[in-house]
Amino acid sequence: MPPEQATLSDIAARAGVSVSTVSKVLHARTDVAPATRERIARLLADHGYRPSRGSGVVDLVIGSLNSPWADALVTGAVEAGAEADCRIVIDSVPDSADVLRHTLERIMARGSDGVLLVHQMPAPETRGRLAAKRIPLVTIDPPAEPGAGVRSVGCTNWQGGLAATRHLIELGHRRIATVTGPLTTWSARARFDGYRAALLAAGLPVAEPLIRRAGFFAPDGRAAALALLDLPEPPTAVVAANDAQAFGVLQALAGRGLRAPADVSVTGFDDTPVAAWAAPPLTTVVQPLEAMAATAFRMLRLHGEGGAAQPEQVELATTLTVRESTGPPPAG
Amino acid sequence: MPPEQATLSDIAARAGVSVSTVSKVLHARTDVAPATRERIARLLADHGYRPSRGSGVVDLVIGSLNSPWADALVTGAVEAGAEADCRIVIDSVPDSADVLRHTLERIMARGSDGVLLVHQMPAPETRGRLAAKRIPLVTIDPPAEPGAGVRSVGCTNWQGGLAATRHLIELGHRRIATVTGPLTTWSARARFDGYRAALLAAGLPVAEPLIRRAGFFAPDGRAAALALLDLPEPPTAVVAANDAQAFGVLQALAGRGLRAPADVSVTGFDDTPVAAWAAPPLTTVVQPLEAMAATAFRMLRLHGEGGAAQPEQVELATTLTVRESTGPPPAG
Repeated sequence: MPPEQATLSDIAARAGVSVSTVSKVLHARTDVAPATRERIARLLADHGYRPSRGSGVVDLVIGSLNSPWADALVTGAVEAGAEADCRIVIDSVPDSADVLRHTLERIMARGSDGVLLVHQMPAPETRGRLAAKRIPLVTIDPPAEPGAGVRSVGCTNWQGGLAATRHLIELGHRRIATVTGPLTTWSARARFDGYRAALLAAGLPVAEPLIRRAGFFAPDGRAAALALLDLPEPPTAVVAANDAQAFGVLQALAGRGLRAPADVSVTGFDDTPVAAWAAPPLTTVVQPLEAMAATAFRMLRLHGEGGAAQPEQVELATTLTVRESTGPPPAG
Repeated sequence: MPPEQATLSDIAARAGVSVSTVSKVLHARTDVAPATRERIARLLADHGYRPSRGSGVVDLVIGSLNSPWADALVTGAVEAGAEADCRIVIDSVPDSADVLRHTLERIMARGSDGVLLVHQMPAPETRGRLAAKRIPLVTIDPPAEPGAGVRSVGCTNWQGGLAATRHLIELGHRRIATVTGPLTTWSARARFDGYRAALLAAGLPVAEPLIRRAGFFAPDGRAAALALLDLPEPPTAVVAANDAQAFGVLQALAGRGLRAPADVSVTGFDDTPVAAWAAPPLTTVVQPLEAMAATAFRMLRLHGEGGAAQPEQVELATTLTVRESTGPPPAG
């Protein structure tokens, strides 16, 4: 028997919190700030209460794993999980609303300390069921603008598109093309708008033939670049919407006997580890993917604590890494 | 109450197995073949026994996640886990014996249905403790030849090195260099021996200046290739020990104004998804990384069943994918 039995109300009073907060700690809910949780847990232990342990598992739900982009998100989540002594379970689901709902149902059935959902958005009904089961949700790189009440972590995509394009303008380029991602995707649209904003700010025209809508994969970038090179006045620089596309642009250049940056400059977006493997190494916008996943993980665990001070939607800053794929335009 | 109470011995007799096998199923051990497990589970349920559930978690313990190679292993494990309705937890640990032991201790403390360990080997004492806790272990791409009693899944590295080199010989190359991985690593040594075997089989000399010992990263490949290009008689082809190195070799060529395959042919090893992003797309040895992880996962779950029929060490076949980075040597 404990030396001194106290009620949860006694403990709440001593900790300076509500009874419901004490109950949360007792039942291993994750939505109590670490310092508060620790203070309460110590008081509970002093009075003979043994808090149940949470599942100790957070689910990272992600589409295809087969890309350096996905790999970086997994890395960030796993490292943040290790720091918090929390296991990260990877659930790979194709981009299908039905499979996503089914996956989230399975997660609810078996229990989870939270769900990190990459580039997908569950239906409001499913979100409501997660909330009812007190399983917090944070989306990473949401495919569309998340509405109120949906927490998300992204990056400053617009600023990234702007920075890459401005870098090329400062190098002296005037005919700057872009390969966009699918413009139904929030991040791709923001990157494209950044490209456009940089051109407009410099007094340069936004020329429709220099804008190529494409998928996010290397063959998409290759095909788009080949079409750009076939223009009567081909561009001297290409702003790609991700690194995979930029690799495809470099393939197109090599296939035509052209070189970057002597003939055409190329920028990527993401700065996945392989960006430095390109020939030449890619100048690219750094999307802090590992930090985004780690931030989302920490947001899961702070759920409910702090009220208005807790941001719902976070965008981490992008920066430009200048490597060797950009330079001044060819003379003439 | 069940309609008819039977002892475990009764059930074992009806299922045609030992009492210990019935007990394993009752206690959610994973080392019973699926068909047998299902038959026993049905009999147990018919007689009012409710098998306890396993943790439903398998741990994938891996070093740095930040490579396409690691990404492919994670993908394979996650997909095999999803098929078996088993969660895959990712534990990223640096290549340190102390951290590995600590990580495995944590896994033992919290429970696991099994450990997939990538490119590391625990001390015999730790392996013994895992076995005592009935947590099966399978190593993937073991760093050294696994001794008896250590189950492993690798690939036919020697054949892969042989196939890449023979492909270049058949294209007409005679001065074929290699960038090896660290030769303390089992897989790197086997690949190098395959290179040597192909040269010897074709009656070609194994020339020490054409052999560059290096690390497994892109900058290692770049530096090794630059040294090779500085030789009085540079090679017309380079066999790299992985795709990252091959990307570095392509960077070195581009830096010297040379092209693959017109001036120098290049082969990689792994066929990670990014191999097709190179300019030109890489000819490379396919290491079936996803299948290796999936095979290891399935071996975990068959542990103990089948006796001698269960292989301890498995090597999956490598194949050569010919893309655009290899061609005939330049004339003269």
